Amino acid sequence: MPTSYASTVVIENFHPCIEGGKHPIKRVIDEPLEVWCDLFKDGHDVMSAVLRWRAVGAKRWSEAPMALIENDRWKGTCSFSKAGRWEYAVEAWGDTFRSWKKTFAVRVGAKDPDVPVEAKEGARLLREAAKRARAAGVAATGKQLEDCADVLTSMAAKDIMDVLQSEELQSLMDEYPDRAQSTTSATLGVIVERERARYSAWYEFFPRSAEARSDKHSTFRDCLGRLDHAADMGFDVIYFPPIHPIGITARKGKNNTLTAKEGDVGSPWAIGGPAGGHRAIEPALGTEKDFVWLVKEAKKRGMEIALDFAINCSPDHPYVKDHPEWFYQRPDGSIRYAENPPKKYQDIYPINFHCDDWKNLWKELIDVVQHWVDLGVKIFRVDNPHTKPVAFWEELIGTIQRKDPDVLFLAEAFTKPKMMQVLGKVGFTQSYTYFTWREDKQALTEYATELTQGDMKWYYRGNFWPNTPDILPGHLQNAGPAMFKIRAALAATLSSTWGMYSGYELCENDPYPGKEEYNNSEKYELKQRDYNKPGPGNITPFIRQINAIRRENPALHLYDNLRFHGSDHPQILCYSKTTPDFSNRVLCVVSHDPHHQASGAVHLDLHALGLDHHRPYKVIDLLHNQSYEWRGADNFVILNPNATMMHLFRVEQ
Amino acid sequence: MPTSYASTVVIENFHPCIEGGKHPIKRVIDEPLEVWCDLFKDGHDVMSAVLRWRAVGAKRWSEAPMALIENDRWKGTCSFSKAGRWEYAVEAWGDTFRSWKKTFAVRVGAKDPDVPVEAKEGARLLREAAKRARAAGVAATGKQLEDCADVLTSMAAKDIMDVLQSEELQSLMDEYPDRAQSTTSATLGVIVERERARYSAWYEFFPRSAEARSDKHSTFRDCLGRLDHAADMGFDVIYFPPIHPIGITARKGKNNTLTAKEGDVGSPWAIGGPAGGHRAIEPALGTEKDFVWLVKEAKKRGMEIALDFAINCSPDHPYVKDHPEWFYQRPDGSIRYAENPPKKYQDIYPINFHCDDWKNLWKELIDVVQHWVDLGVKIFRVDNPHTKPVAFWEELIGTIQRKDPDVLFLAEAFTKPKMMQVLGKVGFTQSYTYFTWREDKQALTEYATELTQGDMKWYYRGNFWPNTPDILPGHLQNAGPAMFKIRAALAATLSSTWGMYSGYELCENDPYPGKEEYNNSEKYELKQRDYNKPGPGNITPFIRQINAIRRENPALHLYDNLRFHGSDHPQILCYSKTTPDFSNRVLCVVSHDPHHQASGAVHLDLHALGLDHHRPYKVIDLLHNQSYEWRGADNFVILNPNATMMHLFRVEQ
Repeated sequence: MPTSYASTVVIENFHPCIEGGKHPIKRVIDEPLEVWCDLFKDGHDVMSAVLRWRAVGAKRWSEAPMALIENDRWKGTCSFSKAGRWEYAVEAWGDTFRSWKKTFAVRVGAKDPDVPVEAKEGARLLREAAKRARAAGVAATGKQLEDCADVLTSMAAKDIMDVLQSEELQSLMDEYPDRAQSTTSATLGVIVERERARYSAWYEFFPRSAEARSDKHSTFRDCLGRLDHAADMGFDVIYFPPIHPIGITARKGKNNTLTAKEGDVGSPWAIGGPAGGHRAIEPALGTEKDFVWLVKEAKKRGMEIALDFAINCSPDHPYVKDHPEWFYQRPDGSIRYAENPPKKYQDIYPINFHCDDWKNLWKELIDVVQHWVDLGVKIFRVDNPHTKPVAFWEELIGTIQRKDPDVLFLAEAFTKPKMMQVLGKVGFTQSYTYFTWREDKQALTEYATELTQGDMKWYYRGNFWPNTPDILPGHLQNAGPAMFKIRAALAATLSSTWGMYSGYELCENDPYPGKEEYNNSEKYELKQRDYNKPGPGNITPFIRQINAIRRENPALHLYDNLRFHGSDHPQILCYSKTTPDFSNRVLCVVSHDPHHQASGAVHLDLHALGLDHHRPYKVIDLLHNQSYEWRGADNFVILNPNATMMHLFRVEQ
Repeated sequence: MPTSYASTVVIENFHPCIEGGKHPIKRVIDEPLEVWCDLFKDGHDVMSAVLRWRAVGAKRWSEAPMALIENDRWKGTCSFSKAGRWEYAVEAWGDTFRSWKKTFAVRVGAKDPDVPVEAKEGARLLREAAKRARAAGVAATGKQLEDCADVLTSMAAKDIMDVLQSEELQSLMDEYPDRAQSTTSATLGVIVERERARYSAWYEFFPRSAEARSDKHSTFRDCLGRLDHAADMGFDVIYFPPIHPIGITARKGKNNTLTAKEGDVGSPWAIGGPAGGHRAIEPALGTEKDFVWLVKEAKKRGMEIALDFAINCSPDHPYVKDHPEWFYQRPDGSIRYAENPPKKYQDIYPINFHCDDWKNLWKELIDVVQHWVDLGVKIFRVDNPHTKPVAFWEELIGTIQRKDPDVLFLAEAFTKPKMMQVLGKVGFTQSYTYFTWREDKQALTEYATELTQGDMKWYYRGNFWPNTPDILPGHLQNAGPAMFKIRAALAATLSSTWGMYSGYELCENDPYPGKEEYNNSEKYELKQRDYNKPGPGNITPFIRQINAIRRENPALHLYDNLRFHGSDHPQILCYSKTTPDFSNRVLCVVSHDPHHQASGAVHLDLHALGLDHHRPYKVIDLLHNQSYEWRGADNFVILNPNATMMHLFRVEQ
């Protein structure tokens, strides 16, 4: 037998629901969540349903009524007032009062001789609600409902109908409905994060090259110039590659050579040396105190510093000596270094996440993150999470966020799509994407649509990067400023969250021969740069303008509001983002070809833009301070790499 | 922390999986089940996975290896050896031996100096497997594996590779893999039923009219003629409307009139009278002994008798006196009769499934079904299940089938689609469908595709009926034999399970004016018929032929193998069913227009038919004993209502 007779309603096709509820969805604070499901029961009862939600661990649920849309599908909306883990569910029941009221009206209309006895039935329902109101301490409502009950048993059908048709009575009854036989759905989870989880602009630089000198290792204290530069360009997250002591044994030399020369600084991703491991700071960068000072300086500028969490141990990492059991042993007793045979990475020892002492290992790694959280770091970029167990990340992110839900995590997993997706499902706030390699109109359209319009939108927030220290994609190699501008504009407008690695604003375009990597990569050496270099090769003003347009247009702060529109030209992308109320609408028209003029008609979905088909509307180019009057869906555009090479329009009607 | 470190593999997108595993899927005995899911883990390990299945309650799982298809998707196949509740799951792990073997081969190829020490690692893996083999009592295998391990540590790389490449070694290792760190998916349920759940032909008749006389109430002992008639036509299920005592109070008269006249037999669905309720037999039909005799007579003829389970109580039902608490009370203390205001059904008292005594009520109703099961009834047609709680049916079917998994249930729910679907999900073996009202080519194509090719195929088996005692659809009203033949052929070939209500073979076509019901409905009176009437209006031979073609062609015994093919003519449907190995292929070409000749090309999906594009093939018309040689996808057909009005081809190449 079922445990309770109360399983009266069928609740199915609950949405959103990831893997049958195994994984939470994601929202930011106050972002609306629309929930729907199929609700029905046997017989002809009128149904009522509420959407319920609460912070995990809270006693009381909040509730909002759900409404029938069509074909047994119901919908409700809620939002979440603070960051943390939340949950939601649906409760539904056959509404005895509404059901009675509906059939009573039919009886009155049909002059059914049973009207008097059925009025008594209604009075009984009212009196029961009155009891519930009194039990809840609301005596006044109890009295009102009892008075209505008296009317039902003492007056003529016509007068009763007047009472029943009052909206006040129904709303009183809705406050104290009979939910004794309600059914509640499974409870689904939500990770609620602060807005920066969805809307952010990242700037990555190596603090050791903060002064842009190849002859001097910069320190945290030398970073203010770069901070000001990033703030001036409008970024709000500064991301540092690992800041920990760099290994000496098997240190890599310039251009990833196997043997470092005297003075080579090594890769920051080979973590651990005499000065310590993941809790320590590379002595050449300064002290913990210096770092905390820099975190505060960033904050003063409206930015925050994100650290890299890279679980790579150099042979000199303290764990190697203190916890050899956390690594893989070879039959000869040595510790196994990283390999992808025949390639060997002798500067890195991979960790065995499933060793016998896994609980202490996992706890230690989580404690490392907590250590930096305690020092004021609230964003982590996680290096290669796909080479560590997914269950470990679920545990780490859950543990950290339960203590401080403001901590955000970016997954750097350039790997197979299903692994990338599941890292989002188990809790990563944001994820790197394939945007970096999506080059033409069709590929960009399909990919951005998949990310922002399919099921992935519930758990995967794509952070779009045109470059990283690891990747100088083909289209940027030896490319001119136009291509750099195009890719930055696409990243910054297709997604609400984007980032770039320093040097991009200088159009650094020199590849390591035959690879998608930088020549003389900053990963292995101090980098000299002239951030103030004159000429068109310095696109700092353009980046500043793009980030300013993002900040001023709330539609660009949203992730899942991307809509593509038709365009006749094979290289012209046309897409829009709007706020739900259409108070802000942005329309982007970009050609992916930096070399040729492109022109043709664009075909707008005016409905998606919230535009009246019969009235003209204004498109204001925010990049060029020009404005045009357009009419109807079809309009002509000319993009010229030497003049107006893209339009970022605000649309007004 | 996770409860076990063994959560190493991600298992997602498990399929088939109904509502996240809330509901079981359905199979018949020995029917293959193909299961797929996404499987992957961190790092570069080679993966292994098995599909596991067992009867619920059994200790041991059966296993079959799964294979990688593409993009992290894996597939496995199983089947179930007997009727009952089963379960299945996936277990997957990083395969240490295969992973080691793969990288070892690369090392050998690259002349890696680490080959000797890595060979030792391989030897360790072999010795661990040897231990597992010995622990399982298979000392010989243990010895073999140990010998291989010795080879690995004592011989040169080239010789080691010879050993490793042996398929015998891999298959020994596959018998004793290291699954200590495997991950197992959620366990999903399967209802396994006997083949009649999927493949059946139903014939409904009223036993009281078995002799087809309006002047005499027939008894069970009078039914042999009808049984022989049904067996001769090739039916295997005889379905009886309720056989219980019929209520006297408010008994309905002929043509559903409110007042019965002297001698009116009443509707069998108004159950309960002085002779008893749902466990009793209407005295005019005979005794329980007579019924048991008839059940055996049906069995002798290769058929079985299905009973109607209709939870309708007449005011004279014993429950009304013995358990008034099971019904709804009105404020005046009377028991509430059925209503759909302003309509009143004073001959029926609905039951309150959520009354305080619901547990005893539910148990009693389940016991009623068990009573008839104990008398030999293994199939029930359930009347209006959608007006009773879905949870009740889940409980009833589960309880009955756990005791006797051969019992099958047909849901008669002509209601909104999601309710019809959920009744299948919670356990109904078969369900009535909207086939009865799907009239043209497009509507039939879409509906049959939705039922047999979409997700519904996992839990909903549509039983196609051209008519029922309740429904004489518009296209059959005053229609001629051609239309009756077309609808029977469609029902019997589109679905593997179909049924008809007696009189159909006589083309009874007289509607109650303005309704989709029969005039002088047998529901309220004894029915006179001439089952042997001569002429084209008796399509008994056609029905016999259709059922014989079904029996002889195994492709028509399967449900989810329906494929539609193109046809140029707007009324010509062209569809096929094949066995998975193409040993039997049936191709149906039917026009839905009984009045006009229809001709045009049909365009076959030769791949779906398992036909070689380059060779001719033979289509043998099983209805007309004619055969044609066809070539390629496009062939011409002519259908003529006066001659060949449909083709049921067997296809051979």
